[in-house]
Amino acid sequence: MMTNDKTLRVIATSEPGEAGALMRALGRRARAAARQVALAPASGRDAALLAMAQALRDDAAPILAANALDLADARAAGHNAAFIDRLMLDAGRLDAVADAVAAIAALPDPVGRITAEWTQPNGLRFERVATPLGVIAVIFESRPNVAADAGALCLKSGNVAILRAGSDSFRTATEIVHALRLGLEAAGLPVDAIQLVPTRDRAAVGAILAGLDGAVDVVVPRGGRSLVARVQSDARVPVFAHLDGNCHVYVHAAADLAMARAILLNAKLRRTGVCGSAETLLVDAACAATHLGPLVSDLLDAGCAVRGDAAAQTIDPRVTPATEQDWATEFLDKIIAVKVVADIGDAIDHIERHGSHHTEAIVSADGAAAARFLAEVDSAIVLHNASTQFADGGEFGFGAEIGIATGRMHARGPVGLEQLCSFKYRVHGAGQIRP
Amino acid sequence: MMTNDKTLRVIATSEPGEAGALMRALGRRARAAARQVALAPASGRDAALLAMAQALRDDAAPILAANALDLADARAAGHNAAFIDRLMLDAGRLDAVADAVAAIAALPDPVGRITAEWTQPNGLRFERVATPLGVIAVIFESRPNVAADAGALCLKSGNVAILRAGSDSFRTATEIVHALRLGLEAAGLPVDAIQLVPTRDRAAVGAILAGLDGAVDVVVPRGGRSLVARVQSDARVPVFAHLDGNCHVYVHAAADLAMARAILLNAKLRRTGVCGSAETLLVDAACAATHLGPLVSDLLDAGCAVRGDAAAQTIDPRVTPATEQDWATEFLDKIIAVKVVADIGDAIDHIERHGSHHTEAIVSADGAAAARFLAEVDSAIVLHNASTQFADGGEFGFGAEIGIATGRMHARGPVGLEQLCSFKYRVHGAGQIRP
Repeated sequence: MMTNDKTLRVIATSEPGEAGALMRALGRRARAAARQVALAPASGRDAALLAMAQALRDDAAPILAANALDLADARAAGHNAAFIDRLMLDAGRLDAVADAVAAIAALPDPVGRITAEWTQPNGLRFERVATPLGVIAVIFESRPNVAADAGALCLKSGNVAILRAGSDSFRTATEIVHALRLGLEAAGLPVDAIQLVPTRDRAAVGAILAGLDGAVDVVVPRGGRSLVARVQSDARVPVFAHLDGNCHVYVHAAADLAMARAILLNAKLRRTGVCGSAETLLVDAACAATHLGPLVSDLLDAGCAVRGDAAAQTIDPRVTPATEQDWATEFLDKIIAVKVVADIGDAIDHIERHGSHHTEAIVSADGAAAARFLAEVDSAIVLHNASTQFADGGEFGFGAEIGIATGRMHARGPVGLEQLCSFKYRVHGAGQIRP
Repeated sequence: MMTNDKTLRVIATSEPGEAGALMRALGRRARAAARQVALAPASGRDAALLAMAQALRDDAAPILAANALDLADARAAGHNAAFIDRLMLDAGRLDAVADAVAAIAALPDPVGRITAEWTQPNGLRFERVATPLGVIAVIFESRPNVAADAGALCLKSGNVAILRAGSDSFRTATEIVHALRLGLEAAGLPVDAIQLVPTRDRAAVGAILAGLDGAVDVVVPRGGRSLVARVQSDARVPVFAHLDGNCHVYVHAAADLAMARAILLNAKLRRTGVCGSAETLLVDAACAATHLGPLVSDLLDAGCAVRGDAAAQTIDPRVTPATEQDWATEFLDKIIAVKVVADIGDAIDHIERHGSHHTEAIVSADGAAAARFLAEVDSAIVLHNASTQFADGGEFGFGAEIGIATGRMHARGPVGLEQLCSFKYRVHGAGQIRP
């Protein structure tokens, strides 16, 4: 594969004060590429994605070598094992990254879908058709696979990506993005459809959040709470994100106990570090006598710390008192807060007061109660008789997601390819003029 | 109708420095009302809308008296006739305002629509359902009917409205909003579902654009270019708006001349002050010999000033030279810029370089050319063989619109009731847990 490395490989610079001019130029290149990418046929975008997947495999050696350098620095800096694990690539993980890019190529084309179509009495035929959003900036931290994943999702949806890697994964991201750009070049698409911010300078993030003179249409933060909080607070452009996933499982009076136990254990403990993991259990007073004990004991026996209200504390001496702060905390760990509520109204009020509008589940055999919960709880995802851990674009059937949003504008819940699109109206006439 | 005027009628205050605290309190009241309004059944919202329409008719005397005071001030301030006309209400116009509110009541309920529904292999059934956005702030200028119109659209879509009237229409808006709140009270909905900013203090606008501590979900500016520019530049929350409507009519080589003449005259001159009026005519070189003359002569004969390129200037001595600035200008007047383009690619490039991504039309008997234009022109609305003046929510069949947006996020084109909604996912299970 012929490449011009000067074009394809981002050159790191850390001269202070350079970030502003550098980022404006990067933004202009992104905007210039956006129209070409938006008008590229699905076959061209898919060919590029497959070439990107192949380039990731072909470039395994330089990618893993760069990753080794990043890992050495991270170990020297004293980062903990979880951090190192997030940063680490090996041959198997890199293969999975390439597989994920190829899988995105195989998804249906989200661009050009006709999402509404109607004809007015004057004969004008209207179509609402999906179009790319434009330029999407993705700011991530240590997970280098996000570069490939986000770049591929943006390209598949006809968008251009500006990727900002965390300092710790900078070398790895540089090599991964190099491979992605090889794929773009091989398919005849502009290499600037995917750009990595070529500096560790933190001023680059501020420039992105300010919108790069109109070159950024939306920002997607992929990382920890402090990153998301900064992006949500400082961005002058729209953001797809969620700050917290303080998810609730509500065991209603009419809940089947066996189902409630299975759902609760799964919602809390299948994986504790995902945003859809349950953080608070609410149990109706009417079924507490029969249900609270088994539910709390299951959690304790599985190694989960339980912080409970007075009722929960009577179940087991291992239950510690919950503080007011616990109701609003996303533990992301083997910890859960447990409360007995008076009734469904009390449960909904608790969720609205302390929740994060992400994902909540009711367990109940009473359809009317479930319908009320699903209607009144103002969260992106509300489930009846299912685990909160289904809060995931893959589980929704979206094929892939760039994140989960709790905002109310444009995207909400899992942000898949459809949500990475805007739309326009095509109107077909036969000479109609307006009276 | 029993009313408590202390609650229902906003009290004007102009003490300097009070705006901040006043606006925060107003934002808290809006947010508190939002959940109640979002959960109110369609029948309750529609009953309120009909009561609002009735209250507007019942309160004609105080509304018209307030309007007379606003008009007297506006005349004393030396405002021109067009300004006075925008501000002026009479019995007939007020009736039309009330009729419009009643008509909104009769539209289908946009809340609770299921916009997608599917089942995953594990049996989970997913529904994407329309929900209200939350709190919508509408900032308008002299047209007092906007208060009723925007308030009604927000309520119909389950949202809460914060209305900010221009200083010149403040008294009229105060009386109109009083009537709207009478309607809310009569139907048992919280009167704070529609609030007027109770001060002329300009600091209130800044507070709204900063988002009122999270109490504002979206801002809609309704007024002139300078208002929209300020809102777009300063808002920290999403904005539904368009800055310019620099719309194009492109007469393609294969255009039927009679159709092109009719569409152009309508697009430019039916009403020159609307955002969908055409501002630039592009004519293919291949048909300029036959088409340019009649098209330009029609415009001139209808009293429209023509600013043309060299080719257009040869048609008639009344054609004056177009400047570079004219290609980017929304004249909103009997003025048009005219240019001969080499071909469809040249036309699309011109529109992308100088246009405002609002509304553009191609006139052509060639379906492939039309398809290319509709695909490649990146505007909210693209039309084939129809007038750009169809850029209107009513003409789209939306029943009503709160404005037209050229942003790419959430809403684009006419912003009707559907676009005033967000969505959430309801997931129906039978005990599913995630493997």
